[in-house]
Amino acid sequence: MEVTKTLARYIVQSRYEDIPADVRHEAARALLNWCGCAIGASRHETIENALAAVLPFAGQAQAQILGRRERTDILHAALINGISSHVFDFDDTHARAVHPSAPVYPALLALAEWKGISGADLVNAFVVGVEAELRVGLSVFPEHYMIGWHITGTAGVFGAAAGVGKLLGLNEQQMAWALGIAATQSSGLREMFGSMCKSLHPGRAAQNGLTAALLASKNFTSSEQGIEAKRGFGQVMSTKFAPSVITAEWGKRWELSSNMYKPFACGLVVQGTIDGCIQLRNEYKLVPDMIESVDLKVSPIVFELTAKENPQTGLEGKFSVFHAAAVALRFGRAGEAEFSDASVLDPVTVALRRKVRIEQDVSIGRVQSRISIKLKDGSRLERYVEHALGTLERPMTDADLEEKFRGLVEGILTDRQSREVIRLCWHVEKLADAGVIARAAATD
Amino acid sequence: MEVTKTLARYIVQSRYEDIPADVRHEAARALLNWCGCAIGASRHETIENALAAVLPFAGQAQAQILGRRERTDILHAALINGISSHVFDFDDTHARAVHPSAPVYPALLALAEWKGISGADLVNAFVVGVEAELRVGLSVFPEHYMIGWHITGTAGVFGAAAGVGKLLGLNEQQMAWALGIAATQSSGLREMFGSMCKSLHPGRAAQNGLTAALLASKNFTSSEQGIEAKRGFGQVMSTKFAPSVITAEWGKRWELSSNMYKPFACGLVVQGTIDGCIQLRNEYKLVPDMIESVDLKVSPIVFELTAKENPQTGLEGKFSVFHAAAVALRFGRAGEAEFSDASVLDPVTVALRRKVRIEQDVSIGRVQSRISIKLKDGSRLERYVEHALGTLERPMTDADLEEKFRGLVEGILTDRQSREVIRLCWHVEKLADAGVIARAAATD
Repeated sequence: MEVTKTLARYIVQSRYEDIPADVRHEAARALLNWCGCAIGASRHETIENALAAVLPFAGQAQAQILGRRERTDILHAALINGISSHVFDFDDTHARAVHPSAPVYPALLALAEWKGISGADLVNAFVVGVEAELRVGLSVFPEHYMIGWHITGTAGVFGAAAGVGKLLGLNEQQMAWALGIAATQSSGLREMFGSMCKSLHPGRAAQNGLTAALLASKNFTSSEQGIEAKRGFGQVMSTKFAPSVITAEWGKRWELSSNMYKPFACGLVVQGTIDGCIQLRNEYKLVPDMIESVDLKVSPIVFELTAKENPQTGLEGKFSVFHAAAVALRFGRAGEAEFSDASVLDPVTVALRRKVRIEQDVSIGRVQSRISIKLKDGSRLERYVEHALGTLERPMTDADLEEKFRGLVEGILTDRQSREVIRLCWHVEKLADAGVIARAAATD
Repeated sequence: MEVTKTLARYIVQSRYEDIPADVRHEAARALLNWCGCAIGASRHETIENALAAVLPFAGQAQAQILGRRERTDILHAALINGISSHVFDFDDTHARAVHPSAPVYPALLALAEWKGISGADLVNAFVVGVEAELRVGLSVFPEHYMIGWHITGTAGVFGAAAGVGKLLGLNEQQMAWALGIAATQSSGLREMFGSMCKSLHPGRAAQNGLTAALLASKNFTSSEQGIEAKRGFGQVMSTKFAPSVITAEWGKRWELSSNMYKPFACGLVVQGTIDGCIQLRNEYKLVPDMIESVDLKVSPIVFELTAKENPQTGLEGKFSVFHAAAVALRFGRAGEAEFSDASVLDPVTVALRRKVRIEQDVSIGRVQSRISIKLKDGSRLERYVEHALGTLERPMTDADLEEKFRGLVEGILTDRQSREVIRLCWHVEKLADAGVIARAAATD
């Protein structure tokens, strides 16, 4: 079965007109969410350090570093914007695997700025790129991930190569080469979780995928069976490889339709608890003084990943269901600001989180939560969150995504810029030059 | 066992004064051989295509593309010079695994040009980088290679990171990060053999290793157990991982002492046959007309890899023991020129190669050959090559390496330039600024 060549043919033949409207709108939602994440993390130490390391070697000012003043060549812009996408771990997540946007949009938007690409072409390339990325990822998931590969990096490079290849107008043979050049650069180890290298993975995937398509466009050759061959991606990098997943139902099934957006700036398994706490706070106008105790029944995985009782830093706070419940009850939100170092040490929040107890319940799903709050007046409030906000069953609305964006870019973009980027993202398909989005996210 | 941190400490503490003179001289030999390979392939289609793809994005003119007029930022120079190193498959080979120089010297020389590094520091960094590269490679060899990883790429990135990290003066923690950032970029699939991507692997290894050290120097963090952790390089990318190989006998055993240089521009298994044919030609002043038939007894692996009877291109000629024997007997050499398209189609050579017959003999080693030539006058010449020229038992002399260099750079460098590069390589340890080597290899 010629998987690589078949996939290449599908990508080359794909047409904007054949993408359903709801899938195209999902591309706009993903764009807004991605821009917010990349801009929001643009001043983070991870980005400062990366820029300090590579700026002396960057080329001409072809593309914008989002949320900053620097402009660089497109390869470095893809790298840096790819890193910032993932620093907060707040970017989109496919229902089964891979953060889809972080490796793909940085490559596409950089190329769009440089070459002048229409919004419709950008959306088409993104949808096709994400489709390639997710299908390659799903062909080896979950075994590939279990072994230790960070699939957002390893599959992401295919998405960037496919999407950029589409924008460059590669022919079928060149597209097969681009996918092969992507395959042979596929990398990223889960051992890096907890360090800055975790975010390096989508950055490198964006940059390497972009390079793969550029090389192929100049007839730099690779194997044409880079994905499926005995010594190719699937067989070498996974104990399971189901090549038919890659090509089945192409043009009928759209993986982007299974894209999810996190409303809260921490791990998936805490989202249900936060969601339920905010619901109860808002409905009953709770303030910390009213609360006697909070009992949570949660999945055993919550104990494994996020049972830190006494976090001392913002990052540790993201791994504390106690802190997460406390800020949700106190502030009715759980964005980056609620996971700052200061927030974690705030005495009122600390007092509140000490009132939170957790109990594991195997009948509770990983994103679910059963909340029981005892008030000082003796009454008890109960809430069972079956589908947390942000899941496929209860997606964030467009308005929710705007609110999330505004929270992320606050203090970096002006209100006027923020409104403009939101507007451009919603109208991306109508833009004559999609590069305006990147330039609108530049700062002084 | 803290392999990554221990290795990092050894690298940081290593001193030029502690490297034995013969190992330092081997670094000079490797440098001359590497320069010849990189300059020799600098006009190849692989390099033209790669440059066409990436030059629009290159930064300031910090480092030289060897054998050409272009200068680029150091990251692109490391990439391109790394690719050209391996295009002819004529670069050095460690006795058990990995082409040592191709991923390391391009990164070091580019940095040397930019920062102004002494020749002694360059040699120290190269020896230490190669040591890290080979020890990491040997810790997973041969299983890692058998699975399908191109070990020159996957282990090479550690060599570049270690060597550049040494030149940048990283502290132990930063060096551990550099090795981790290298680990998480380790890539390169054997499926790419036969395409331009094979040479991309050492190029990317050089560039990625250089980037790893630069990132670490700006405190971009990674895991400090990138090599040995459960989800680190050794466990994820190999079925065998022997971490103790990496640190054992550091400073006592020098892997560079097991470095080999190929005298002939084709695969290892044909070197014995070529060597023996050249010996007989020179001793008996053979010309094609004198030869009735040539019988070779060779290892079964020669049948598997190089039994192409009727090659039509130069590349196919490299996989034809018949063609290799014919050019050796006719010209007394087997450099790139003898593996050109024209050479393979030359009628006199074609007639001669049709007189060559091969027979497999399991008692013959892979680099050995038993040659029997019947002359038209009825006499028979015999030669058994137990140790081919270029093996550890019969290394190429310094003069042989000079001759190989001159053959590679002919038509690219002037004779005067060629002599100058040779002189600089032999005197590398005395150079105040090692960057002069790269600038001496620039053309108009």
